[in-house]
Amino acid sequence: MNAEDLTRVQRLIAAGRLFHRRGWVPATGGNFSARRDAGTMLITASGCHKGELEPEHFLVADLDGKPLQVGRKASYETLLHCQLYRFDVAIGAVLHTHSIANTVLSRRYEGICLAGYELLKLLPGISTHDAAVIVPVFENDQDIARLAARVDAHLRERPQTPAYLIAGHGLYAWGADVDQARWRVEALEFMFECELRSQALKE
Amino acid sequence: MNAEDLTRVQRLIAAGRLFHRRGWVPATGGNFSARRDAGTMLITASGCHKGELEPEHFLVADLDGKPLQVGRKASYETLLHCQLYRFDVAIGAVLHTHSIANTVLSRRYEGICLAGYELLKLLPGISTHDAAVIVPVFENDQDIARLAARVDAHLRERPQTPAYLIAGHGLYAWGADVDQARWRVEALEFMFECELRSQALKE
Amino acid sequence: MNAEDLTRVQRLIAAGRLFHRRGWVPATGGNFSARRDAGTMLITASGCHKGELEPEHFLVADLDGKPLQVGRKASYETLLHCQLYRFDVAIGAVLHTHSIANTVLSRRYEGICLAGYELLKLLPGISTHDAAVIVPVFENDQDIARLAARVDAHLRERPQTPAYLIAGHGLYAWGADVDQARWRVEALEFMFECELRSQALKE
Amino acid sequence: MNAEDLTRVQRLIAAGRLFHRRGWVPATGGNFSARRDAGTMLITASGCHKGELEPEHFLVADLDGKPLQVGRKASYETLLHCQLYRFDVAIGAVLHTHSIANTVLSRRYEGICLAGYELLKLLPGISTHDAAVIVPVFENDQDIARLAARVDAHLRERPQTPAYLIAGHGLYAWGADVDQARWRVEALEFMFECELRSQALKE
Repeated sequence: MNAEDLTRVQRLIAAGRLFHRRGWVPATGGNFSARRDAGTMLITASGCHKGELEPEHFLVADLDGKPLQVGRKASYETLLHCQLYRFDVAIGAVLHTHSIANTVLSRRYEGICLAGYELLKLLPGISTHDAAVIVPVFENDQDIARLAARVDAHLRERPQTPAYLIAGHGLYAWGADVDQARWRVEALEFMFECELRSQALKE
Repeated sequence: MNAEDLTRVQRLIAAGRLFHRRGWVPATGGNFSARRDAGTMLITASGCHKGELEPEHFLVADLDGKPLQVGRKASYETLLHCQLYRFDVAIGAVLHTHSIANTVLSRRYEGICLAGYELLKLLPGISTHDAAVIVPVFENDQDIARLAARVDAHLRERPQTPAYLIAGHGLYAWGADVDQARWRVEALEFMFECELRSQALKE
Repeated sequence: MNAEDLTRVQRLIAAGRLFHRRGWVPATGGNFSARRDAGTMLITASGCHKGELEPEHFLVADLDGKPLQVGRKASYETLLHCQLYRFDVAIGAVLHTHSIANTVLSRRYEGICLAGYELLKLLPGISTHDAAVIVPVFENDQDIARLAARVDAHLRERPQTPAYLIAGHGLYAWGADVDQARWRVEALEFMFECELRSQALKE
Repeated sequence: MNAEDLTRVQRLIAAGRLFHRRGWVPATGGNFSARRDAGTMLITASGCHKGELEPEHFLVADLDGKPLQVGRKASYETLLHCQLYRFDVAIGAVLHTHSIANTVLSRRYEGICLAGYELLKLLPGISTHDAAVIVPVFENDQDIARLAARVDAHLRERPQTPAYLIAGHGLYAWGADVDQARWRVEALEFMFECELRSQALKE
């Protein structure tokens, strides 16, 4: 692991600690990655706890999800990371979280509309609160290749999609680097929680 | 206490700190144990605060709940730990928590059905979100031997039970070792909180 | 400040940090004290932040609330602490918190009934979950002497009262020492939050 | 940066860390400032994360919002800070937060009435819980000069206004120094959360 890789890994470890304190990556839930170059990424290994990551919990894989080191096993959902890195060369990091709010909302709706929030400005291509985005919800599927293909078809049709949810499972968000991806997770989770709290209010 | 015991104790102390930060072991609530061998376990002493454990708060007891050291008093609910270790030799750790979500749900329902969550995959024998488990709720009882017998009868009839609740009291979860048991607590508490938040929403 | 006082102060400072992390002592809200002997107590000074206490934020006062040091000003609500220390010589510490749950409940009800919780066993004189206690709610009053007299009359009539609330203001709880008082706060706040969450659920 | 400036910056950094732990400044949301003298202030730079501030994230600007250092860019909402410092010479610090509670409430109401809370005593000019204040809600606007003019007109008409909200965006609060402003944020956020929790209860 070179110095740049170590920096990426340290930013991912810090994101994991923050997310776990917030309750967004319970147990071994979630997975994180960062692009290294045009053809490879660093990604969390299968089955580790995302709030207690160490550098040895990361491995290098190509964008077909194949580990470069013999004997390592990448996260079960590696192909969803690959899909994003192949879809857009500007994507430098992908973060997947399981929060209470995103899980509850994703089990009830086929898409989450976020409108009128100042924090929308954290999302790609948005410069005003006076905007609306749809975060689509995909049905969960243990066949990750099939799920990745559905995500890919959706993003090709609606390239402005800022992030997506998998029902009962969680959020996939991304950015040019780990910090931008993390900031978007913070903004999205904030807006999801606002939506959930709003729906619990009396009329 | 030998080196292996000290490792077990350190993992239980760390679990307690995490659980207390989350509000899952208020005051002296909860108790934790880890199996040492076929016939003995380490278990928290009676009356200590589970977020501020030190090695001296643990004692060794046999699987009838009898402390091996003279003058020590094991947790009031020791027999519930014994029941699990005797029921299944593969159980290596037992964690009991009192969260807001598990307390509120356990006071309202006779069992909690968890279905469609990705995190179900943390539970024993489940490899897909497309599953449903029932976490049974037992009526609380200050006669712990009687309560342990009811739990034992239930588990013998339904050995796939992944964990159980005691009404107004809390969760009992287990695993092959302390970390697996803790991960299951994190996953179960997450799903309980999702259930509770969902039930607070308007239709 | 002698060694015993310093120990009491350190336990109160630790309680304040924990309570602030939980959101139970916002801003300068709350106040804490510990009995020194039959006639004096240590109590937080007026206007300090209870999550960031230092030893100099405490002063010694007699049980009429009069500071022993010239020029120090005790907490505005000192007479409520005095009432408890005079009411029962076994009371060694008094903790006053402002949580979301205790504030919301105290604005809606004239008393909070807690029944069927395992954590009731943390309260004085209770050894089973199969019990019920009433935490009375007093109307708030900026005339603290008058409020203290109302509390005193209530406690003399119902000496088993485990703690009390002031409407829109917060909880007063106590114990033989700082740790027992803190554990009772943890248990009471837990049960208040359970009550609040339960009331937000659909029937 | 002189010694007094460094102290102000350290207090603002500490406030940011606390607010982020509470979830009140997600991502790059929020901004903070402290007055230096009659004509200048320290303010957070544009686009930095408010929970992870370092001294280099602050710059000096005059009360028209113009940075004194060449090449620095002040927070996008600098003019809202300027408005307050120009409006009242006694204002020494301004803190802007984005909490779940203030965001949800500000999207539903044109003003938030806070009455009967002991913590009202933290607000300017209030010495009893038996008071009521209105926290006005302004419509969000990406034209900050126009928004600042609306705020200014409102405050000139109702100078007792203790703080204000921007719909879907957040809270602006202030005080004589950073600590007083922070304490008011803690008190206001507490009362907003109480209001939100109350509205989620069944009748």
